[in-house]
Amino acid sequence: MNKGAAGTRASPTRATPRTLGFVILTLFMLSCAASQTLAVAEQHVTDESARWADPLPSWNNTAAKARIINFVEAVTDPENPGYFAPEERIATFDNDGTLWVEQPLYAELAFAIYRIEILARAHPEWKSVDLLRALLTSDMQSMLALGNRVPIEVIVASHTGMSTTMFDTIVREWMHNARHPRFERPYTELTYQPQLELLAFLRVNGFKTYIVCSGTVEFMRPWAGEAYGIRPDQVIGTSVDTVYEVQGGKASLLRLPEIYLVGDASGKPVGIQKHIGQRPILAFGNSDGDFEMLQWTTQGSGGERLGLVLHHDDAKREYAYDRESNVGRLDKALDAADESGWVVVSMKNDWNSVFAD
Amino acid sequence: MNKGAAGTRASPTRATPRTLGFVILTLFMLSCAASQTLAVAEQHVTDESARWADPLPSWNNTAAKARIINFVEAVTDPENPGYFAPEERIATFDNDGTLWVEQPLYAELAFAIYRIEILARAHPEWKSVDLLRALLTSDMQSMLALGNRVPIEVIVASHTGMSTTMFDTIVREWMHNARHPRFERPYTELTYQPQLELLAFLRVNGFKTYIVCSGTVEFMRPWAGEAYGIRPDQVIGTSVDTVYEVQGGKASLLRLPEIYLVGDASGKPVGIQKHIGQRPILAFGNSDGDFEMLQWTTQGSGGERLGLVLHHDDAKREYAYDRESNVGRLDKALDAADESGWVVVSMKNDWNSVFAD
Repeated sequence: MNKGAAGTRASPTRATPRTLGFVILTLFMLSCAASQTLAVAEQHVTDESARWADPLPSWNNTAAKARIINFVEAVTDPENPGYFAPEERIATFDNDGTLWVEQPLYAELAFAIYRIEILARAHPEWKSVDLLRALLTSDMQSMLALGNRVPIEVIVASHTGMSTTMFDTIVREWMHNARHPRFERPYTELTYQPQLELLAFLRVNGFKTYIVCSGTVEFMRPWAGEAYGIRPDQVIGTSVDTVYEVQGGKASLLRLPEIYLVGDASGKPVGIQKHIGQRPILAFGNSDGDFEMLQWTTQGSGGERLGLVLHHDDAKREYAYDRESNVGRLDKALDAADESGWVVVSMKNDWNSVFAD
Repeated sequence: MNKGAAGTRASPTRATPRTLGFVILTLFMLSCAASQTLAVAEQHVTDESARWADPLPSWNNTAAKARIINFVEAVTDPENPGYFAPEERIATFDNDGTLWVEQPLYAELAFAIYRIEILARAHPEWKSVDLLRALLTSDMQSMLALGNRVPIEVIVASHTGMSTTMFDTIVREWMHNARHPRFERPYTELTYQPQLELLAFLRVNGFKTYIVCSGTVEFMRPWAGEAYGIRPDQVIGTSVDTVYEVQGGKASLLRLPEIYLVGDASGKPVGIQKHIGQRPILAFGNSDGDFEMLQWTTQGSGGERLGLVLHHDDAKREYAYDRESNVGRLDKALDAADESGWVVVSMKNDWNSVFAD
């Protein structure tokens, strides 16, 4: 656009000394980069395991991994008919059950229960709402019956009525303190290592990576950067509305008890279009809530597209569930995978590790 | 996240030759980069105008330009108390009247009139809607009275009822064929050259640049990349809702006659939070519709923040208007600029060119 501006921050009146400084700095950086490249190269050559050269070390060398690598090679190779320019390389990932553990209860639902327990004293009327009463009495059966999504009543009760800044702090605190009931680790340590490698591999290859979740974006944004390397504006999902307020000269955004988008099922393509404005060329999900996102992605015209479905079949290292599960049910999407050409990734067979150590 | 994956697309079994190729390619690229840097440096030193060193050549050397350059130097200098990490460098720009011409009529309103004229034959009932009748009879006074925004009725009539793909094509075609009534050039040639330089300067300095417009995102996305270097997902504004449909095995998103966000006034901070999830550190507007965005940006805590207001005071090269104008009225924001520390940019005095040649 304005190539003259590239690399300079100098004011025009002080151009020459700055320019020389810039040249010296650049040469210094280039020489550093060169020696670093050589050091890395040496490591490549001498490391017998050749682990550095494998972009997906936690993936076993199975058909699923080959499909992913072949796809990325095809779309990044200008000579290949499946080539996509970098700005077209959009990859969308579901979160719960695709990037981190969703059993036995969504992290966001655990968070909502924590919040509702704190707030319940000030809200005696909640006892007359079936869902909230179930949460407050720890009626696990009712909670599990909630199915694929944290219900709107629960989001409204637990996620609204405060400023956006305050909610961000509440989420960060909870995420720091909460522990998963089985693994007894913070939820952010229960992200899947193979998926972190895949996200990094895609980004290195020019992809822009997005989360498209059925949970709320405001619950994910405070930690998605650190956990996944995904910026707040690349998280798409359910969200609560806000209103702009100025009180005592101080501006804030108040979170209202109104849901403005539900990021599940057919809401996923809608959210993708609203937010990204481009059709993905890769989508990764794990449940029927991802069916439409996978369909929308892989039916796009032009070039190759890749749909991936994570199958939780590993009770030992994580959980085994599919067609009968209330949380993360995988039924319709499993049936459709074959004829749609989607890759079903077996946690048990395709991943050699599940969590980072 | 997974540093081992960086820079490699090789399959594990073919690591060594690929790695050597990578090293050779990198060294070649480094040597090219080094000689190019030297060539550019030479140009810097020998070019008496030192134009290459000026990141904002279409800006005169006035206080406004100095404020911008000082701000960018401060936020990018880790030694400076006003430093912001790259991921915090969010800049938001209004579009109409800030990045391109908005007089005598918003481009999107001209587009809507064109659409409504085509569609009117099939919609005799539109004659009973005051606004639509005014458009169809070219009643300029009524059109100008529409004020700061294309009315919702007009957007519904002209922008909905087709698939997202079809709408994209309609916008591209119109943009290719339409001409501005005074300048007789395509609207996309009536973007402001000084602003293109500013956008590039910010991006070179690690900023992520967004458009936050009162127009619809779907009208802007098809051409914002080429015109401004801004990707579709970095355009925020008014939008129409869509529904996901599969007919005859083919998926599409149908644009519904429902508006889901109005990106003006207090809708701007709301849209920024929804979409970006971070508070900007720089905002640039030109009308009262940008007041809240400027306020939200510059009231943020931590470090320096920059609010900028473009004042259209150049009837010769463009237009002169402010407090009395129906299109892009600048009144409240002009009054607030002084006490808020916002920089009022005079088109006449601060810019040495307005449009690219």
